[in-house]
Amino acid sequence: MSYRAPVEEVSFFLKTCTALPRLMELGLVDLSFDVVDPVLDEAGKFAASVIAPLDRGADKQGCTLNDGAVTTPEGWRGAYEAWAAAGWNSVAAEEEFGGQHLPTCVTSALTEFWNSASPAFGIGGVLTMGAIEALTAHGSAAVQNTYLPKMVAGTWTGTMNLTEPQAGSDLSALRAKAVKQADGTYRVFGTKIFISYGEHDLAENIVHLVLARLPDAPAGTRGISLFVVPKFLVNADGSLGARNDVVCAGIEHKLGLNGSPTCTMAFGAAGEGAVGYLVGEENRGLACMFTMMNNARLAVGIQGVAVAERATQRAFAYARERRQGRAPGVDGAAPIIAHPDVKRMLLTMRAETDAARAICLKTADALDRAHRLADPLARSSALAEASLLTPVAKAFSTDIGTEVASLGIQVHGGMGYVEETGAAQHLRDARIFAIYEGTNGIQAIDLVTRKLPQEDGDVVEALIADYRDIADEVAALNVPDFGHAGTRLGEAVDALGRTTRKMLDWLPEEPAKALAGATPYLRLFARAAGGAYLAKVALAAYAERSAGGTDPRLSARIALARFFAENLATEAKGLEETVIGGAGGVLEAEAVLAIA
Amino acid sequence: MSYRAPVEEVSFFLKTCTALPRLMELGLVDLSFDVVDPVLDEAGKFAASVIAPLDRGADKQGCTLNDGAVTTPEGWRGAYEAWAAAGWNSVAAEEEFGGQHLPTCVTSALTEFWNSASPAFGIGGVLTMGAIEALTAHGSAAVQNTYLPKMVAGTWTGTMNLTEPQAGSDLSALRAKAVKQADGTYRVFGTKIFISYGEHDLAENIVHLVLARLPDAPAGTRGISLFVVPKFLVNADGSLGARNDVVCAGIEHKLGLNGSPTCTMAFGAAGEGAVGYLVGEENRGLACMFTMMNNARLAVGIQGVAVAERATQRAFAYARERRQGRAPGVDGAAPIIAHPDVKRMLLTMRAETDAARAICLKTADALDRAHRLADPLARSSALAEASLLTPVAKAFSTDIGTEVASLGIQVHGGMGYVEETGAAQHLRDARIFAIYEGTNGIQAIDLVTRKLPQEDGDVVEALIADYRDIADEVAALNVPDFGHAGTRLGEAVDALGRTTRKMLDWLPEEPAKALAGATPYLRLFARAAGGAYLAKVALAAYAERSAGGTDPRLSARIALARFFAENLATEAKGLEETVIGGAGGVLEAEAVLAIA
Repeated sequence: MSYRAPVEEVSFFLKTCTALPRLMELGLVDLSFDVVDPVLDEAGKFAASVIAPLDRGADKQGCTLNDGAVTTPEGWRGAYEAWAAAGWNSVAAEEEFGGQHLPTCVTSALTEFWNSASPAFGIGGVLTMGAIEALTAHGSAAVQNTYLPKMVAGTWTGTMNLTEPQAGSDLSALRAKAVKQADGTYRVFGTKIFISYGEHDLAENIVHLVLARLPDAPAGTRGISLFVVPKFLVNADGSLGARNDVVCAGIEHKLGLNGSPTCTMAFGAAGEGAVGYLVGEENRGLACMFTMMNNARLAVGIQGVAVAERATQRAFAYARERRQGRAPGVDGAAPIIAHPDVKRMLLTMRAETDAARAICLKTADALDRAHRLADPLARSSALAEASLLTPVAKAFSTDIGTEVASLGIQVHGGMGYVEETGAAQHLRDARIFAIYEGTNGIQAIDLVTRKLPQEDGDVVEALIADYRDIADEVAALNVPDFGHAGTRLGEAVDALGRTTRKMLDWLPEEPAKALAGATPYLRLFARAAGGAYLAKVALAAYAERSAGGTDPRLSARIALARFFAENLATEAKGLEETVIGGAGGVLEAEAVLAIA
Repeated sequence: MSYRAPVEEVSFFLKTCTALPRLMELGLVDLSFDVVDPVLDEAGKFAASVIAPLDRGADKQGCTLNDGAVTTPEGWRGAYEAWAAAGWNSVAAEEEFGGQHLPTCVTSALTEFWNSASPAFGIGGVLTMGAIEALTAHGSAAVQNTYLPKMVAGTWTGTMNLTEPQAGSDLSALRAKAVKQADGTYRVFGTKIFISYGEHDLAENIVHLVLARLPDAPAGTRGISLFVVPKFLVNADGSLGARNDVVCAGIEHKLGLNGSPTCTMAFGAAGEGAVGYLVGEENRGLACMFTMMNNARLAVGIQGVAVAERATQRAFAYARERRQGRAPGVDGAAPIIAHPDVKRMLLTMRAETDAARAICLKTADALDRAHRLADPLARSSALAEASLLTPVAKAFSTDIGTEVASLGIQVHGGMGYVEETGAAQHLRDARIFAIYEGTNGIQAIDLVTRKLPQEDGDVVEALIADYRDIADEVAALNVPDFGHAGTRLGEAVDALGRTTRKMLDWLPEEPAKALAGATPYLRLFARAAGGAYLAKVALAAYAERSAGGTDPRLSARIALARFFAENLATEAKGLEETVIGGAGGVLEAEAVLAIA
């Protein structure tokens, strides 16, 4: 099945639901939609024509490791080089290092397209862009000048080296060490696991960002420093020098994402240590890494959207073609899309995907406002909003990535279980997104314990008030196309409001209850936010249609917002009950946990 | 990780929540728990020690096809022979054919154990037992005498040949044909796909049950006949004769269940047709096959429970061992089971698994009453109950099979994505259960359109009244261990009651709305039923504890019922809203379906 990038959807969203048009008007983004639309279009075509055709083969072939060298699947290197040559690796980076500095809401859409075409391909770019962002924010001038131009051009790629066998989610437990040398460089020792594209054959050099401890560092997260450790050392003239003491010691046999090598990286195994260069200050590495992680968290959320989009397109195509059984108004065997239960599956896939995309793009939009607006207060308020939305974007989008991919298999029936069909791969690929870059449980805990309390709860309350306004606007419109969407959405927003206040009350007094309810709370948040953003899109579509617009997509946007509100946002009250009334049952179930 | 069969849980359930003790008392089941408990125990040991150790290797190795011969994984044949030799294949069959005729609630538990140990192994037995049941009910004396003793002994295995490429869920579209011969036999022609264990090297002969059409048969499902088509013809003395004209033309490369060959079977490809023998009457084959399918539907539900149980055990074991982060009351790095969010995942896994098992065992219990009670009215009422519960047992258990397996991966973090851990295989294996033996969408439609209207709704109303009584009993008990379980459960049951009445109203007038809501309705049903059955178990545990029982499992059962009611049954009201208020949004979303 061929992939078609959702260019019109993204463009409509950017135009009607983000600050981008205003930033353009104010000259804070030096672009117009006359540029943005063709960029989206070109990217969509590149993704569909160059990357997507490689995805199935790459999954089957996988990566191999021989003597420390990783061979990526056939066609991977050519596609990577063409992609970098077309400038797609440089869209987000600063202009001074050769980047295009496009707004995050635009680059996020591009990230989606690459990852729809092939998430195993797309993850490489996500990591390089994250590394570029970290070095741009925290690198010394020397490090920036040495590494960034090549990384922005895509000649060299970047990695994130955080996880160690004993330190997965808990970075305070990490043990990799770094010893300062007389010349100001460091020697890095240790083993890192689960390093995506830690070794590969796509580019000349690989720039590892590595977390490690100095010998005298304080324990815990306040004793972690960040280093650049290149695969090949770089000579003063920028040419490649000696091989550094870092090797790929193994690659994982995974459920999916087989086109992406997941490496165990050994630093300093040869004895003298891998040469590394400090990024930021000693013992402040975690703060630096968080720049990269926040970027990466949004990008992983977008990976969830991307695979959901692909699975949705595949399911729609199959459901239109496959004929089975009778349906009203259809002669002979009906295409299965005509069956109400199949309609429900397809609408769920489409609605969850679009809601997740909307949440991700609103997160990106908040980042754009945080970085581009002139007023410092407006910037910091936008940054707080982005911070709050990031864990929701990451966790919800990746949860629905798995759910939508699983529904996609179901739409295909028995054929969905056969690998050749391609539907099963989406589930295998998507399943990691809920885990890497901070498990979704950790996202939920981050949302509840760190993000809700921002500015005494004012940040979250402001968002909830926005959602309330959207629900009210839908309700006030009172047109049949929206069904009972206004009412249902209002109920979801109210449930979110009440539950948020309970969470804020619990945090100082009964934090375990807040932790016990964090995951269903995040889901509740996404039900209200996703419903509100889809309704915002629908209101814009309604206005355009009322003004004479005839694009059939306008009615589709309204119908989708209605479906979400009436069929999915309805979960909200139950989630409220679970969070508020269920914590006791979680925390007082030691008898079960002791046995089962 | 070693598997431990949940013998105590099953035994407690059979003793406290089924009619088995009463059937024993009345002499309608000629057994006591002095026999049943050791049978469960032995089966659990066999599953854990003989079958479970082969499961990972079989998944990796898979099956191969060469010249029509399928080679199953290493160890498979030895395990199968030992299993059959120990009598485990014959537990359900009638005594006259060498069976043990154990109650279905007992054999269902055994089916769970085999499938927890390895669903790729277990599915073979499920199909043979289904074929035995169909032949026992509908076969001629000649067919029964020729095939049943060998099939019951496990010397020969059985298959179900329904699906054709153009006829998946819709059997009315099937085209395989059968031509009557002068000697009263038939010649069968056609291609069947997705035939589990259609060809293998485990047993001497394979007895295919095949649906096909006679040349003059009416169109649709009223023109389908059922045939026995053995791989090897059987001589008059019972010895094996010539090879029949049926071959395995291909095996599928699947997402999971790799130890089980999924075959394309070609009947009559050599030209003269495969020799077949009619089962039941001409053109009445579907009714005969339904005997087998209902049995198989419950068994597939049990497969869902089985994989959920294995995934749950694996996640608990990992969560106790893996240390990460800090938790209150734990020195140093805490086992992740101490984190509230991980507790929620584990409790959800355990609660969904036990609720699904309870629904399956109650379905089996209804079948036992239907087959063993003396009073014809009581029998037919029990049969109606079993019919109603079967689609719920199949669809809910298999949905949670996938969900629980996915949660199991999440508990493992990054390790869950690595195949060696074993957690990922459970998701791959479980994903087919929601599809085969009638997709879960079809189960939901069956529940709503055929089962709810039984006896004008009296059958479903009686079950709902039972659930209401259980909820009231919990509420009346009013002890803190149960938290707000009584209230929450009562709300779920009320939501089910209202939604059921709406469904029954819709069926004659607006059937499309009933179809659009069938899937969330089934989930709602399972929320109320699962909660009620777990509460029934908990009430029995409470009584035993109050009478001085000190088994720590007693308190665990109460805590689990509470968790389910307060954290999962809370979905019920939202599901009610979705079914009742969401159908319009499904049926009026043509604009979305035309585009996306």
